[in-house]
Amino acid sequence: MKEGKKVSDAVIKRLPRYLRYLDDLHEEGIERISSGELGKLMGITASQIRQDLNCFGGFGQQGYGYNVNNMREEISTILGLNNTELSLIVLGAGHLGTAIANYTNFEKRGFKIKAIFDINPEIIGKKIKDVEISDVKYLEEFLSSNKIDIVVFTMPAVAIKSVLDIIVKSDIKGIWNFSYLNLKVPEHIAMENVHMSDSLMSLSYKITQNKK
Amino acid sequence: MKEGKKVSDAVIKRLPRYLRYLDDLHEEGIERISSGELGKLMGITASQIRQDLNCFGGFGQQGYGYNVNNMREEISTILGLNNTELSLIVLGAGHLGTAIANYTNFEKRGFKIKAIFDINPEIIGKKIKDVEISDVKYLEEFLSSNKIDIVVFTMPAVAIKSVLDIIVKSDIKGIWNFSYLNLKVPEHIAMENVHMSDSLMSLSYKITQNKK
Repeated sequence: MKEGKKVSDAVIKRLPRYLRYLDDLHEEGIERISSGELGKLMGITASQIRQDLNCFGGFGQQGYGYNVNNMREEISTILGLNNTELSLIVLGAGHLGTAIANYTNFEKRGFKIKAIFDINPEIIGKKIKDVEISDVKYLEEFLSSNKIDIVVFTMPAVAIKSVLDIIVKSDIKGIWNFSYLNLKVPEHIAMENVHMSDSLMSLSYKITQNKK
Repeated sequence: MKEGKKVSDAVIKRLPRYLRYLDDLHEEGIERISSGELGKLMGITASQIRQDLNCFGGFGQQGYGYNVNNMREEISTILGLNNTELSLIVLGAGHLGTAIANYTNFEKRGFKIKAIFDINPEIIGKKIKDVEISDVKYLEEFLSSNKIDIVVFTMPAVAIKSVLDIIVKSDIKGIWNFSYLNLKVPEHIAMENVHMSDSLMSLSYKITQNKK
C-alpha cells in the first residue's frame, strides 16, 4: 500500500466485493482481466476500478489488465485475511447466531468460530457444527483464558448491555454487531454494524423511485 | 423532495440510519434536536447532516434545530414507508430465513411476510410465527394469484437459480438478496444485496489497521 495515503471508507467497503468477483473469475480459470471487463461484470466504470486500486499502488500494467490471482492475494492481504486466522465467538445462538455459526464461507476466509454463548438453558450444551453452546455466565472466564479477536453480537440489546463491560475490558479487537444497538466502544476496538432493516428500507426507497 | 435533484446513493444509505436515531429520540420524548447534537450522537459532522437533509429540501429552520417527529415522518415518506404495506415472501426457511421471518421490527416499518417457501420436506408445513412454510413448487402459482412486492432470497445459490425465471416474470418489485449470487435482473426490479461476509472482511481490515 502507498504509505501515508488515507484510503476512504467507500473504497474499503468495495474491496470485499472485488475479492468476491475475483474469486469467481479464479474459479472459472480466468487469469487476466482488464478494468473494462471487470467493471462490466461488477456494474461500475473502468475508471472507478483504476482509481480504487491506485489507492493501493495499482496491481495493473497499462494495457495488460490485471493478474486475477495476484490481485486476489493483494486484496486479501490488505483486508488482513492472509496468513492469519481470526478467532470469533458468537454471543447469541438464536436463528441469526446459528446461521452465522453454520456459514462455512467464513472459515474459507480464515475466520474460526471458537465458542458460542447464550442465556437460554434449553440450548446450552447443544452443538452447532463442532462448537458447544456455553452459558454466557462463563464468558468472562473464557475471554481471560482464550485469545479471541472478534465478538459477534446476535443477542437482544438488553442481553448485550449486560455483557458489554466484560467485552470491552477483554483483549478483543473487533465487534461484529447485528443488534439494533448503537454501541459506543473504545477506539482500539474496531466495529462493524450490520443493520439488516436499513437494507430493507433502502430497497423500499428504490421500489418507490421505480414507481415514479 | 426538490424536483429534479439526483440524490446520491450514499445519502440514501444514510436515511435509514437517521430514522433509527430519530426513532430513539422520539421514544425518549425529545421533540427537537440541532444538527450539532444529532451529529454528535451519530458520529458525523453537523455540516454533513445539513448537507444530507438539504437534498430533500431541509426540514430545519436556522437556529431552531429539527423537529424530531416531522423529520421521522418525512424520512419515512421518502423511504416509501408511510401509508403503505409492502408484502414480502421469504425463499428459504433455514436459519437466516427463519431469523428474518421472526424479526418483528420489519412489521413495525410496514413490511408484511405473506409466505415462506422451502424445498426441504421436513420443514414444509411447519409454521414460523403465523406463516406456514410452503413447498417451493407452488411458488409460481402463488405469485400469479397474490400481489407480492418483495422476494427475500435466503436459499442456496443453486436453488435460487432454479426459480429466478419465475420471480423475474412475476409482478414483484424488489429482491432482497442474502445469497452469495451476483444476480442480474431487469431494471424494473429493485435489488438490495446483503453480503454478510463483506462486512466481516471490512471488520478484519479495521482490525489490521488498528494494529499498525
